Amino acid sequence: MSDPSLAHRPTLEAVAARAGVSRATASRVVNGSDGVRAPLAERVRRAVDELGYVPNQAARTLVTRRNDAVAVVVAEPETRFFSDPFLTQQVRGISKELTARDNQLVLLLTEGAADYERVGRYLAGGHVDGALLFSLHDDDTLPALARRAGVPTVIGGRPSWSDADTLYVDCDNRGGARDAVTYLLDGGRRRIGHIAGPLDQTASVDRLEGFRDALPGTDPRMIAEGDFTPEGGARAMAALLEHCPDLDAVFAASDVMASGALRVLRTRGIKVPEDIAVVGFDDIVSVAEWTDPPLTTIRQDIEEMGRMMARLLLRRVSPSAGDADGPALSSIITPTRLVVRASA
Amino acid sequence: MSDPSLAHRPTLEAVAARAGVSRATASRVVNGSDGVRAPLAERVRRAVDELGYVPNQAARTLVTRRNDAVAVVVAEPETRFFSDPFLTQQVRGISKELTARDNQLVLLLTEGAADYERVGRYLAGGHVDGALLFSLHDDDTLPALARRAGVPTVIGGRPSWSDADTLYVDCDNRGGARDAVTYLLDGGRRRIGHIAGPLDQTASVDRLEGFRDALPGTDPRMIAEGDFTPEGGARAMAALLEHCPDLDAVFAASDVMASGALRVLRTRGIKVPEDIAVVGFDDIVSVAEWTDPPLTTIRQDIEEMGRMMARLLLRRVSPSAGDADGPALSSIITPTRLVVRASA
Repeated sequence: MSDPSLAHRPTLEAVAARAGVSRATASRVVNGSDGVRAPLAERVRRAVDELGYVPNQAARTLVTRRNDAVAVVVAEPETRFFSDPFLTQQVRGISKELTARDNQLVLLLTEGAADYERVGRYLAGGHVDGALLFSLHDDDTLPALARRAGVPTVIGGRPSWSDADTLYVDCDNRGGARDAVTYLLDGGRRRIGHIAGPLDQTASVDRLEGFRDALPGTDPRMIAEGDFTPEGGARAMAALLEHCPDLDAVFAASDVMASGALRVLRTRGIKVPEDIAVVGFDDIVSVAEWTDPPLTTIRQDIEEMGRMMARLLLRRVSPSAGDADGPALSSIITPTRLVVRASA
Repeated sequence: MSDPSLAHRPTLEAVAARAGVSRATASRVVNGSDGVRAPLAERVRRAVDELGYVPNQAARTLVTRRNDAVAVVVAEPETRFFSDPFLTQQVRGISKELTARDNQLVLLLTEGAADYERVGRYLAGGHVDGALLFSLHDDDTLPALARRAGVPTVIGGRPSWSDADTLYVDCDNRGGARDAVTYLLDGGRRRIGHIAGPLDQTASVDRLEGFRDALPGTDPRMIAEGDFTPEGGARAMAALLEHCPDLDAVFAASDVMASGALRVLRTRGIKVPEDIAVVGFDDIVSVAEWTDPPLTTIRQDIEEMGRMMARLLLRRVSPSAGDADGPALSSIITPTRLVVRASA
């Protein structure tokens, strides 16, 4: 049984018949070619309106190679994606920018890396003009699949490889982390632990490097790896307390992990910031302003970074005349800044 | 400046040249047609592998008319979508079911109804085999746009119109609401207010009907309209307290609105359930189990309803031989049940 609504879709042949022109003439008008006399073109346009004809975009894409649509692929399972305010906030920026430029955001969800081949097929299918990839892990095959699909990309977060073709948008992870730890040191803290993000992601590695810049030679047991979730932050906090009972401060590589750490400290009756000061990273307002106590953190402009990714990709997809004379496209590193609240 | 990675994409011509066959022969093999001698076909397949050729799916779609991809359009701005656990949980069910059947979930985000024309163009573009639409409001143009695009659809939630072609999945909103109010009446509550959802959505109207079934002739001031957000629930709760100071129970049309109502009651020192009993709707575990006190509610199986929507759409898109002899496709209404926790 086929869908009855399909029967309602008018064809180009029907348009041509109603306008009293050949199919080729109707096609030229619908596809915006020149060379059709004005009265004929007008009759075709009237037939299009009267019949409610929608051109077959798949056919048109073969000619124009433009869909006015951009794929977003987050290298996390949908369960993780929907519950991570950093990721949804970045998609928010992308959505606003693409909407302002009348491009459709096409979010390709997965249940995990096993689905990336399928995502690659969709990218190769001529359904989008480009792709934004983010939250990449070292072993992710997405960038290679996108390249093989011939789809221009921009990457959110510095990738673990570097070559001339790769464009990305990231914040100054290392500098921000250094600022966080320097602030704790300036406040007189001496036994500072670090809750790192997953170390197969460059943002985590760069923040750890920034921590080490400010505290060279730190005992490795003062560093615990989390996974950018509240539960991961809680587990890492418990591990730090076990290994270093005299801890007086913690720098967590994300606000979300810091919120999990605060929960553990509260449960154990450890006062923040009196006993242990806590600094996060990201400044996700819906997290950092609502923790108890509110979180001192390193701010990055997550939504604006999403917008930058979208703008960079659209320039790559469709360079304007101005770009040809202007500077070549290049990756962007945005600054961070310390936001002081009550937790440190 | 065009994207350099595009240059790496091998063409069908290159495959044909490498295999030493004509382009037409290479095309027949790539598109799975019969009639090419086995040794030739084998040479083409080897060339495809060696070159990493990916068929142009836009061209292929013109022939097969299948993308193995399904669009999901939620009739809410992305800001609302990402913060609504009901919506994300339903998408979770859809994602699991589509993944299990190797179909790509294509989530088309918008900033609001002004973007629906653009969504309609994407749906008309031959990029997906069908579309799941949900959280529809009475004046939404999405169903008409999908129909005009010739895309088979299934709707999440009973639509406000009814015709033979329209398929939907919903829960028994009216029966569930009736059960909620009956439970409060059985517990001896007599001054029962209702926090309704937005009344331009059928789920809200049906739940209000169920409330009225159990309490015919209720004073209209005992009913306050919310918007399925915590803030809307809080505002409606405040309005009810103002109009009916002797309230002894509230039935909220969603857990999320009930969580906002509980916050208002706590702020005012009103005890739940002693002074005012509260019942929600949905049984979103991440909300209902974590409110203070935990929420008595009406459970609907949100994730399973998402899976049902996906299954129904795939049957509509691609009926199997079995379906031809079986019953016609029809809409689905799933049962609800009361879950008793501490709030009532």
